[in-house]
Amino acid sequence: MRVAVVGASGYTGLELLRILLRHPGFEVVAATSEQRAGRPVGEVFPSLRGRLDLRFEAAAPAALAGRIDLAFTALPHAASAASVKVLRLAGVTVVDLSADFRLRDLATYAKWYAEHPAPELLPEAVYGLPEVYRERLRGAALVASPGCYPTGTLLPLLPLLRAGLVETRGIHVDAKSGVSGAGRKLDDAYLFAEQDGNCMAYKPGYAHRHAPEIEQEAAAAAGGEVRISFVPHLLPTTRGIASCVFVRPRAGAELPRARAALDDAYRDEPFVRVLPEGETPTLQSVRATNFCDVALAADERNDTWILLSTLDNLGKGASGQAVQCANLVAGFDETTGLLEVAPNP
Amino acid sequence: MRVAVVGASGYTGLELLRILLRHPGFEVVAATSEQRAGRPVGEVFPSLRGRLDLRFEAAAPAALAGRIDLAFTALPHAASAASVKVLRLAGVTVVDLSADFRLRDLATYAKWYAEHPAPELLPEAVYGLPEVYRERLRGAALVASPGCYPTGTLLPLLPLLRAGLVETRGIHVDAKSGVSGAGRKLDDAYLFAEQDGNCMAYKPGYAHRHAPEIEQEAAAAAGGEVRISFVPHLLPTTRGIASCVFVRPRAGAELPRARAALDDAYRDEPFVRVLPEGETPTLQSVRATNFCDVALAADERNDTWILLSTLDNLGKGASGQAVQCANLVAGFDETTGLLEVAPNP
Amino acid sequence: MRVAVVGASGYTGLELLRILLRHPGFEVVAATSEQRAGRPVGEVFPSLRGRLDLRFEAAAPAALAGRIDLAFTALPHAASAASVKVLRLAGVTVVDLSADFRLRDLATYAKWYAEHPAPELLPEAVYGLPEVYRERLRGAALVASPGCYPTGTLLPLLPLLRAGLVETRGIHVDAKSGVSGAGRKLDDAYLFAEQDGNCMAYKPGYAHRHAPEIEQEAAAAAGGEVRISFVPHLLPTTRGIASCVFVRPRAGAELPRARAALDDAYRDEPFVRVLPEGETPTLQSVRATNFCDVALAADERNDTWILLSTLDNLGKGASGQAVQCANLVAGFDETTGLLEVAPNP
Amino acid sequence: MRVAVVGASGYTGLELLRILLRHPGFEVVAATSEQRAGRPVGEVFPSLRGRLDLRFEAAAPAALAGRIDLAFTALPHAASAASVKVLRLAGVTVVDLSADFRLRDLATYAKWYAEHPAPELLPEAVYGLPEVYRERLRGAALVASPGCYPTGTLLPLLPLLRAGLVETRGIHVDAKSGVSGAGRKLDDAYLFAEQDGNCMAYKPGYAHRHAPEIEQEAAAAAGGEVRISFVPHLLPTTRGIASCVFVRPRAGAELPRARAALDDAYRDEPFVRVLPEGETPTLQSVRATNFCDVALAADERNDTWILLSTLDNLGKGASGQAVQCANLVAGFDETTGLLEVAPNP
Repeated sequence: MRVAVVGASGYTGLELLRILLRHPGFEVVAATSEQRAGRPVGEVFPSLRGRLDLRFEAAAPAALAGRIDLAFTALPHAASAASVKVLRLAGVTVVDLSADFRLRDLATYAKWYAEHPAPELLPEAVYGLPEVYRERLRGAALVASPGCYPTGTLLPLLPLLRAGLVETRGIHVDAKSGVSGAGRKLDDAYLFAEQDGNCMAYKPGYAHRHAPEIEQEAAAAAGGEVRISFVPHLLPTTRGIASCVFVRPRAGAELPRARAALDDAYRDEPFVRVLPEGETPTLQSVRATNFCDVALAADERNDTWILLSTLDNLGKGASGQAVQCANLVAGFDETTGLLEVAPNP
Repeated sequence: MRVAVVGASGYTGLELLRILLRHPGFEVVAATSEQRAGRPVGEVFPSLRGRLDLRFEAAAPAALAGRIDLAFTALPHAASAASVKVLRLAGVTVVDLSADFRLRDLATYAKWYAEHPAPELLPEAVYGLPEVYRERLRGAALVASPGCYPTGTLLPLLPLLRAGLVETRGIHVDAKSGVSGAGRKLDDAYLFAEQDGNCMAYKPGYAHRHAPEIEQEAAAAAGGEVRISFVPHLLPTTRGIASCVFVRPRAGAELPRARAALDDAYRDEPFVRVLPEGETPTLQSVRATNFCDVALAADERNDTWILLSTLDNLGKGASGQAVQCANLVAGFDETTGLLEVAPNP
Repeated sequence: MRVAVVGASGYTGLELLRILLRHPGFEVVAATSEQRAGRPVGEVFPSLRGRLDLRFEAAAPAALAGRIDLAFTALPHAASAASVKVLRLAGVTVVDLSADFRLRDLATYAKWYAEHPAPELLPEAVYGLPEVYRERLRGAALVASPGCYPTGTLLPLLPLLRAGLVETRGIHVDAKSGVSGAGRKLDDAYLFAEQDGNCMAYKPGYAHRHAPEIEQEAAAAAGGEVRISFVPHLLPTTRGIASCVFVRPRAGAELPRARAALDDAYRDEPFVRVLPEGETPTLQSVRATNFCDVALAADERNDTWILLSTLDNLGKGASGQAVQCANLVAGFDETTGLLEVAPNP
Repeated sequence: MRVAVVGASGYTGLELLRILLRHPGFEVVAATSEQRAGRPVGEVFPSLRGRLDLRFEAAAPAALAGRIDLAFTALPHAASAASVKVLRLAGVTVVDLSADFRLRDLATYAKWYAEHPAPELLPEAVYGLPEVYRERLRGAALVASPGCYPTGTLLPLLPLLRAGLVETRGIHVDAKSGVSGAGRKLDDAYLFAEQDGNCMAYKPGYAHRHAPEIEQEAAAAAGGEVRISFVPHLLPTTRGIASCVFVRPRAGAELPRARAALDDAYRDEPFVRVLPEGETPTLQSVRATNFCDVALAADERNDTWILLSTLDNLGKGASGQAVQCANLVAGFDETTGLLEVAPNP
């Protein structure tokens, strides 16, 4: 199957190339980058030297249409939707890694991002969390690959909401992300010297663009409004998100039922690993992979359950998950190209 | 004033030496280390070469007694209390950096640590948080220097509890510590290759030894039982603790009153800096210093206020704070030797 | 083909497991570890959870013999040779990652390591640098997988020595290694807090055990004695070796011939990438891979040529290279399981 | 003494502020930054909050003249010289941290930097290496504070050149710098995600601007031309330079004489610490300080001596050294404000 990576010189684009190179079913026939158009991929990114014999092309979705079966779009929001529109009109299947098709409510999208450039496509978009929407993803024409923070928060939380075991208000999330989560953005704040050994919260409360996305999917699982306070942090590392979710059990809900809900949800999932009682997930175990490790702890004295998860923001939090969705869309085994183990150490 | 650092080859001991070398009022006349006894300090720790002309001595508190006016004890728990006992009998003033005199309840101490080796000294011990116990610290004979996590959690939280603005149950703390918090402990888990780029929660809920210490002081401020779930994490850096405390406002409590409570509590404090609205504290701003930066944010939709703080676990979280207490004990200006600015970057 | 990893809980052992899991031709049927015997691999190393359904076994080479076709031995020196002896007697093909069969001269081995436990096996051992010994490796019974530093120094240096373009005395090497090069060794020096942000030379001159190994292979290429001063450093990262080799051109030797020698040597090599003039290799481009990137620069004013290389000390510097050798031994395509691209960033 | 920091928002400017705040003899009365003019220093750089009650001013050297006795100029090259010119005309003493007054030869400056904006000032400029030019620095009107790499290479090398113990050709330097050496430069290459865990050589040979500066001072010590090949590297940390200098002893020169030359040169120096035989310097021991640690090793088999040094590129490599010079200029004890010990760990 011929695929293109549109916006291939950003961090999620590069990670897509890296994964697709080990995928037996997808052949990368085009990689676009306006800024680097014309230059060999392996010259710009020496990690790819000798492994991918392509030149970056300027982004022209229409021109790609005849050459590919599926496109991964990894452009900034709004720009992505514009490209997706052209590709979809030409009949190309799209897995979009931007935020453009994640929020189902147009007003919410407008409030947090911009006027939507292609609202007519929203109805066909499927939220690309295979653990929730697997059946709808099979054969979908447009996949909205989830945000990195939402994936890390939702995977441990959804089974408990779905089972009605926890209060839907007063949920508190503290999430810590590697600096690559900001993309290759030229900003003082992301210079090495500013984040080396540093750690800081930013946009605490309900101020980060991933917050409404988290609440949308949480509400879908709970069958009603959910309120989540979300405090993202920057970690002094490149890859990975560690999430800590504090929830309160509903009256009568017992811890073993929560454990069972998690175990039942993920027993057969290839990429979500529920850790045994007493263990806690680490970034190191999921780095550069498509795994999400999940654990449950409790402080019964304080009516509090604690959900922990780790994933790689560029892996299960972005490009890995996008390929997982593409496997479903294309009818490949869902794990194809994605079972790589984390470098340890 | 002649001082000794008892247990000087651990990380808090070394940080004490570093601070005391710039202090005009304290002269370090002895540094003990069983393991390194006899060797010149500057040979063992090259950062001190040329700056401290002492040899490590074997730990013999009784022998120190006649030579010093004040001792900083930085030994493992229980071992510390045993040394403190000897020193106090000899009339030496002690600032103890272990956990031995922090918990006022013997049974709690026994449950989390061990049988207490010197319970008779507990009544004279003052908890070394100058922002709370300043007057009692002036002239105290025995100071129990607080834990690093408790300092980071309590400084932002106490003013709100004291003012009765927040619920005393359902408090959630996510704290992230640099690896030096574990001390110079030879354990697989603390090898460079295991924590480089890693991040992980450990002992989540109410399982870390600092949890009862936090609740003790929170309860003292609130005037009644407080319940706090505490999730510590390891960060891939050496120094610093970033804390995020989720609290729920009491009915009728308004955010401006919370801001005022923080501002009032710390306006005249030399080492606690309350950040302007909209800013968040960073580790980089407090690294290698005695400062604690504090901020307040809110998610009113979810009845949640968010307290953020950063400090250096070896600075305001341990050795800096111990010297601040010693300044009070000895009658020096409280800031002596402690106003150093963080290296930035 | 059934393989065992003997000494599977060290860093090179784990990396072998990681690589072998993506290898279609080798099936890991045993992983030994005395210390962790009996425990499931995925419980001890959560990165392997769900990917390898084995328990660690106590090391008993004789018991392995009937169950496997090939063994990777990754034990400390001397211990490794003892195991290799048993395995070879039982007819098992061995790729040994220790230093035991790298030095062809017994006295040199004795001087730098210990009395050799199995000198009778030395004649059949082939030094596992495929770029030099490819033909001898095909079908070899015992492979001595090279040290990490030697691989990084030799790959850029050998073509110039072989072509007689550089002086064989006065060669200067500055090599910088990630901390995982020390293995999972419990020593103060390798604690996170000691190496975070640190950098230091150690054993400078001709004092590191890899120095005689480098000279042995350099001499073989030059056809006579070579003198190399070697200064290894620790880098504040986990993986990777960056090497800088200063050589002096022989009278009449010209830079283009040196470039040609490198290009000719590696044009068809799958894992050595000679960079275009003006570029310098980075650790990031080879991390977690089997690639070695190589560059040549010059300071003609000072009769000095500069060879630069980067590789992953656990990849091309150890486990990757061992699998590359095993592929040759077993008759698989040499690149099988080894073409993975570095995570970037 | 009233001082200004001109260009105070770069990394060397900030480090100057940090050091000057602990200096009893210098009072910072102005800090300039075009980009941040008007904003309180402590708002822009939270590490300075509560410690420095100033606003950044737009750079207008003429307007500073009447208000200050001494200026530290920390602007980009050429821009710095232009400011220095105005300040000197107004009779202000200047310690310049740019490269503008380091090279004594105008043609060399023009080749590596630009046309010189103030060549008439070169004769009064003194190269600010106190270990070499101490007497000329006392009362100097214009100090050219040395580059970070030159300081690290020259301090171990000069005594051997001065004593005529080593060959003056064929010197090889491998230097490794923290990323802050690039300043707060907005460039892809200095993003956190690009340098985290990375290491790479750049501008190898005789291509870095510090190379001619090194040769100039080496030649002055040797009393004739010296040839040095210089290979700078980026380290995955913020602060520090570790240098490795390979030299060849002259016929008849013996190692003990080299040791004696180093010991004699630095026995009474407050900031250069010659390590005992067998030890190697670390970045950690000098981080955030004005110390430079130096060691000598040898590989006699290969006629090679190895000089090692570490310093903090923002400390002894820039701002610390500038204050050391200012102390000499102003007649303060040379160590004032500079004896701070490195945080360890």
